[in-house]
Amino acid sequence: MGGQMTKFIKKLVGPLVSLFFLLNMTSAGFAETTVSAEVGFIFNTFLFLVCGFLVMFMACGFAMLESGMVTSKSVSVICAKNIGLFSIAGIMFWLVGYNLAYGIPEGGYIGSFTPWSDASAVDTGYADGSDWYFQMVFCATTVSIVSGTLAERIKLWPFFLFAAILSGIIYPIVMGWQWGGGWLAAAGFSDFAGSTLVHSTGGSAALAGAILLGARTGRFDKTGKPTVMKPFAASSIPLVTIGVFILWLGWFGFNGGSQLAMGTFDDAVAVSNIFINTNLAACGGVLAAAIVTRLMMGKTDVVQMLNGAIGGLVAITAEPLMPSPLAAILIGGVGGVIVVFGTKLLFSLKIDDVVGAVPAHLFAGIWGTLAVPITNPDTSFGPQLLGVISINAFVFVVAFIVWAIMKNTMGIRLSKEAEKTGTDVTETGVIAYAIKD
Amino acid sequence: MGGQMTKFIKKLVGPLVSLFFLLNMTSAGFAETTVSAEVGFIFNTFLFLVCGFLVMFMACGFAMLESGMVTSKSVSVICAKNIGLFSIAGIMFWLVGYNLAYGIPEGGYIGSFTPWSDASAVDTGYADGSDWYFQMVFCATTVSIVSGTLAERIKLWPFFLFAAILSGIIYPIVMGWQWGGGWLAAAGFSDFAGSTLVHSTGGSAALAGAILLGARTGRFDKTGKPTVMKPFAASSIPLVTIGVFILWLGWFGFNGGSQLAMGTFDDAVAVSNIFINTNLAACGGVLAAAIVTRLMMGKTDVVQMLNGAIGGLVAITAEPLMPSPLAAILIGGVGGVIVVFGTKLLFSLKIDDVVGAVPAHLFAGIWGTLAVPITNPDTSFGPQLLGVISINAFVFVVAFIVWAIMKNTMGIRLSKEAEKTGTDVTETGVIAYAIKD
Amino acid sequence: MGGQMTKFIKKLVGPLVSLFFLLNMTSAGFAETTVSAEVGFIFNTFLFLVCGFLVMFMACGFAMLESGMVTSKSVSVICAKNIGLFSIAGIMFWLVGYNLAYGIPEGGYIGSFTPWSDASAVDTGYADGSDWYFQMVFCATTVSIVSGTLAERIKLWPFFLFAAILSGIIYPIVMGWQWGGGWLAAAGFSDFAGSTLVHSTGGSAALAGAILLGARTGRFDKTGKPTVMKPFAASSIPLVTIGVFILWLGWFGFNGGSQLAMGTFDDAVAVSNIFINTNLAACGGVLAAAIVTRLMMGKTDVVQMLNGAIGGLVAITAEPLMPSPLAAILIGGVGGVIVVFGTKLLFSLKIDDVVGAVPAHLFAGIWGTLAVPITNPDTSFGPQLLGVISINAFVFVVAFIVWAIMKNTMGIRLSKEAEKTGTDVTETGVIAYAIKD
Repeated sequence: MGGQMTKFIKKLVGPLVSLFFLLNMTSAGFAETTVSAEVGFIFNTFLFLVCGFLVMFMACGFAMLESGMVTSKSVSVICAKNIGLFSIAGIMFWLVGYNLAYGIPEGGYIGSFTPWSDASAVDTGYADGSDWYFQMVFCATTVSIVSGTLAERIKLWPFFLFAAILSGIIYPIVMGWQWGGGWLAAAGFSDFAGSTLVHSTGGSAALAGAILLGARTGRFDKTGKPTVMKPFAASSIPLVTIGVFILWLGWFGFNGGSQLAMGTFDDAVAVSNIFINTNLAACGGVLAAAIVTRLMMGKTDVVQMLNGAIGGLVAITAEPLMPSPLAAILIGGVGGVIVVFGTKLLFSLKIDDVVGAVPAHLFAGIWGTLAVPITNPDTSFGPQLLGVISINAFVFVVAFIVWAIMKNTMGIRLSKEAEKTGTDVTETGVIAYAIKD
Repeated sequence: MGGQMTKFIKKLVGPLVSLFFLLNMTSAGFAETTVSAEVGFIFNTFLFLVCGFLVMFMACGFAMLESGMVTSKSVSVICAKNIGLFSIAGIMFWLVGYNLAYGIPEGGYIGSFTPWSDASAVDTGYADGSDWYFQMVFCATTVSIVSGTLAERIKLWPFFLFAAILSGIIYPIVMGWQWGGGWLAAAGFSDFAGSTLVHSTGGSAALAGAILLGARTGRFDKTGKPTVMKPFAASSIPLVTIGVFILWLGWFGFNGGSQLAMGTFDDAVAVSNIFINTNLAACGGVLAAAIVTRLMMGKTDVVQMLNGAIGGLVAITAEPLMPSPLAAILIGGVGGVIVVFGTKLLFSLKIDDVVGAVPAHLFAGIWGTLAVPITNPDTSFGPQLLGVISINAFVFVVAFIVWAIMKNTMGIRLSKEAEKTGTDVTETGVIAYAIKD
Repeated sequence: MGGQMTKFIKKLVGPLVSLFFLLNMTSAGFAETTVSAEVGFIFNTFLFLVCGFLVMFMACGFAMLESGMVTSKSVSVICAKNIGLFSIAGIMFWLVGYNLAYGIPEGGYIGSFTPWSDASAVDTGYADGSDWYFQMVFCATTVSIVSGTLAERIKLWPFFLFAAILSGIIYPIVMGWQWGGGWLAAAGFSDFAGSTLVHSTGGSAALAGAILLGARTGRFDKTGKPTVMKPFAASSIPLVTIGVFILWLGWFGFNGGSQLAMGTFDDAVAVSNIFINTNLAACGGVLAAAIVTRLMMGKTDVVQMLNGAIGGLVAITAEPLMPSPLAAILIGGVGGVIVVFGTKLLFSLKIDDVVGAVPAHLFAGIWGTLAVPITNPDTSFGPQLLGVISINAFVFVVAFIVWAIMKNTMGIRLSKEAEKTGTDVTETGVIAYAIKD
C-alpha cells in the first residue's frame, strides 16, 4: 500500500484507525504498532514538511535549468516567470485549487470552488496544513514545466494568466480525478506520485502553448533543421547542471513524500526504498542518454544527460515503490532514451521546446505510467492507458482553448522586434548578465 | 502559543512539565499527550537541526543574491565577505553571543560574557546544541544582511571586524531583550521569528554603514539620479534568483523552527500553518512588486519581484502563526510594495544600498512588527512600537559609533583608484569571471 | 559511543537490544528510554534519509565548485563528469559496493560480490534502504573528489570507467576494513565519518591520476612556476562559492548522520554537538586561510578561504563528536592552513590539481585522522597512523595501476589539439557559456 491514491482512503478510515488504537492501548503488549496516534501524526506531518520543502526547492531547479537553457537575452524574464508562477500557484492553490481537487465526491469529476482552511485532527493522521503545503508544491511544479518550453517569445503577463488557470483550475481537476478519489481512481488508475498527473499535465499544457505560439524566429532553417549552436546556444551549462541536481534532490521529496506516511515501520521502509528507486532511475536516465548520444552523435551530449536525469525521474514517479533496483534502473534508462529521441521528434515536427520539457515530462511520463503494471501486480494496462489518454487529452484541449482565446484577445507572442532585442530588455528592463571579463 | 519569546518560559517550566509527565505515566489512559518526554525531546531537537540547516543555507542565498547584484568587478570580494562573515559569526556566537543573549536576568538588559557550553537534559525539551545551532544561524543572518548594502567600496577586514562586533555583541544584546526574557519581553513586545530582532537589526546596522561610507563613486549623477544601468548594472540576474529561492527555502526553517517545538499535535499543526503563511506572504510580496513596477514603470522589474519576495518574507516573520492565509498574502504584499517605494526613497536620499537590503529588511521589518496586533489579539500596538524604536535606535546608534571609530582609525573605504580597478583585484587578487565566449 | 564503526556492533547487538526492550515493556516505569523500538527505528531511518539527501546534494556542490575552478572551455565536460559519476556510483554501489563493504567477515579484508537487497527488520534499528542510501552518497562523494583534480585534460569515458572501479571496488573494500568491522576496526582504528575512508581515499585516487596524466599544457612555465592568472584563471568564483556553501550544508548530513542513530536522548544530543563542531571547524578553516594568505601574500585569497572551509570540514570528519568547540575550531583551522601550504607543495612538485582537492581532501584528511586521539581518549596514535598509511597506500597503488593500464590501452589524456580547443567542444559538443554582454 502507499501512494497518493490512498490519501482518500486514509481520510475515510482515519477515525476507525484512531478508535482501534485507543482500544488497543489498554493491551499494549499485543499492539500491531508501538507508535501512538499522536507520534504517528507528528512523523507524518514532519515527512510532509521536509519532503515539501524539497519539492518547493524544485521551483529553483526549474528556474536555473531554464535560465541556463535559454539564450542570454531571455534570462531575466525566465527568472521573473519562475518566481512569478510559483507565487501565483501558491495563492491559486489556496484560493481554489486544494478544495477543487480534494472536495470531489467519490468517483466524481470536480470538487468545490472554496478556499482551503485548516481542519487538523489527530484522526486524519497529519496536520492539514502540512498536506496543503506538500500538495501546493506539486501544483507549482506542474506550472514550472510550462515556462521553459515557451521561453523567449511569449509575453510575460499572458503567461502569468495561464499559470493562474493551470494551477487553480486545470491541474486541480485532474488531480481530483485520481488523488481526490474521483472517477479515475475508481477506474483502477494508478499514479503514485504524478508521472501523469503532474509531469504529463505540465508537458501537455506546454505542448499546446508551443504549437499555438510557433517557434522562435529563425529557430529552424529553410530545410527544417534546427539551429543548435549560436544564436540559439544555451547561455549557461553550469546553471542547467545545478538546476538538474536541485530537481534530483527535490525528487526524493516528491516521490518519498507521496508515501504520505512515516509513522510506522512499514512506511519508513517504504519511503527508504522509494528514495533508492528514485535515485537509480535517474542514474539510468543519465547513463542511457550518455551512451545513446555518444554512439549516435559521436559526442557525449551533456544537455541530454541532464535531461536524461529528468526523464528517468519522471518515468519512475508513477511507481517508485514496487520496482526492484534493477527494474528502476531500466525504467529510468528507457526514460532517458525517450528524452533523446523525443527531442529529435519535436525537431522534426518543428515544435520549438526551448528546454526539452515535453520529451522529459510528457513523453517520459506516459512511459512511466504505462510501465506501472510491469512491477505492480495490483494494476493493469487498461486503466493506465485510460488515465494517460484522458488526462493528457483533457489538459491539452483545455490548455489549447485557453491559449487560443488569449492569442486572439490580448495576444501571447512578442513582436519580432522585441524578440530580436531580447525579452529581458523589453519585458523586465533588466539585462541578465553584465559581465566584464 | 509559540514563538521565540516563549523559549524563556519553556526553560522555566520545563522541569515542571517533565514532573507532570512522570506522574502522568502511571495513568497513561488519561494523558493529555501520548508523546513521552524523550520522544518529544527528539522531535524538538530534530526540528531545530532541520530548520537550522535550512537557515544556514540562507548564508548561501545571501552570497548569491549579493554576487548577482554587484557589478562584475566586485564579485569575488562579496563571496569572500559572505563566507568570512558566516565563519566569524559562528565563532563569536559560541564565544560570547549565546550567553550574552540567554544569560540575561529576567526583565534585564544584558547577559554574561561567557562561552556557550552544553547543558542538555530531557527536562529542557531539546538538545542544547541544537538550540545553539539554530540561534547561531539567526545571528549569521543578521550579519549577512549588512554585507550587500556596503558592497563595492568597503575594505574587507574592517568589514570583518564589524561582523565580529555585530554577531558577538550588538545582535546578542537585542536578542536577549526579547528572546532571552529581557526588558522588552517584559514590556509585552512580540516578534515571533525576528522581523525586528534579526532583519531590522541587520538593516539598521547596514544603513549606519552606508551613510558613513557614502555612495559608490559616480553612482548618482549631478541631478541626483542614480545610474541604474551600466556601469552599475547587476552582474547576474540568475544568481540573484537562485539566491532568493534559497532564502525563500531557508525561511521555512527560519519561521517554522521558531515555533521551537514539534513534539505535540499542537506544535506540528502550528509549524505547518507557519510554513503556509510564510509561503503566502512571499507570494504576496512578489506579485505586489510585479504589479506596482509594471503599472508605474511600464516594465515588470524582475529585481523588485525578487526583493519583493524578501520584503514579504520579512514582513510575516514577526507573526507567521496567527494570520489567516489571506492576511498573510496581504501582509506580504504590503512588504513587497514597501520594497519598491523604499528603494526609491533611498535613491532620493542618495544613500547607496547596493542590494536593496535596507528596504527589504529594515523597512519591511518595521511594517511586519507593527502589523502583529492586527492578527494576534495578545499583542498591542504600543509595545510593538516600543520594540521597533528601541531596537532600531540602539542598533543604529551603536553601529554608527563603531563604523565612525573604524573610519577614523583604520579607515573603512577603499581608495578611488581601488574602487575603479574593482575590489576583486585589489582585495582578493582573484577576478570573478574569466569567461571566454 | 557513536560513529560509523559502531554500525557493525549495532548489527550484532540489535536483536539483543530489541529483546531487552520487549522485556522492559512490562515494567515501563523503570525503562532506560521511553522510546519504543519502532519509534526509534523511524527516527533512525528519518535521520539517514534527511542526512542522506544533504550528502547527495554535495554532488551538486562538487559540480559547482569544479565548474567554477576550471577555465571556461572545460565547464560543460566537468558538468557531464559530475552528473555521470554520481549515476555510475549509484548503480555500482547497489550492484556490488554495499555488500563488498558490509558483507566482510569480522576482522576480515573483503566482503561478497553480490547486489544489495532489502532486509529491514525492527531489530536492526533502521530501514536497510535508508542505510544503503546514506552509504551510497558517501561512495559518490569519494568519486566526486577525483573529477576536479584531473579536469581539462582527461578523456571523459576513461574517467567514467575509473569512477565505476573506484565506487564499485576500491572504496567499498577500504570501507569494509573499518565500517564493515574488518581488520582496521579490529586494530582499533577510528574514523567517525570518513576523513580517511572517504576524503583521503578520493584524494589518493586523484593524486595517482594527476601524476600519470601530467599537468595541463602550459600550466607551469620554464622556471616551474604555475601560471595562476589567465589563461588558467577560474571561470566563475560565485560558482565556486555556491559549491562550497552546498558542501558545507551537506557536511551536517555527512557527519551528523554518521552518528547512525537519532532515537534516544543521547543520540539527539550527540547529533546536535556534531553539527556544532562541524560548523566551527569550517569556520576555523576559512579564517585560518584568510589570515595566512593575507599575511603571506598581501591579499585575502578568496579561493583559499573557500578551500579552507573544505579543509576544516575534512579535518573534523574523523572525530566530530568528542572535541570541545574550541578544539573543533583549532582542528579546522589547521586544516585550512594545510590547504594553503599543500597547494604550494603541489605547485612545487608540478602536480596540476585543478581544484585543490588533494590538499583539501587528502592532506587535511590525514591531519584530521591523526588528530583524533587528541580529543578521543578511546583512540591512540598507532592505530590511527596504521589506518592512514594502509588505506592511502592501498588506494594510491591500486588507483595508479588502474590508471596506468587505462593509459596504456585506451589512453586517458586528450590530444594537445583537443586540449587547446577545449574539452567542452571536443567531448560534449556543447559550449558552456554563450553570454552576450
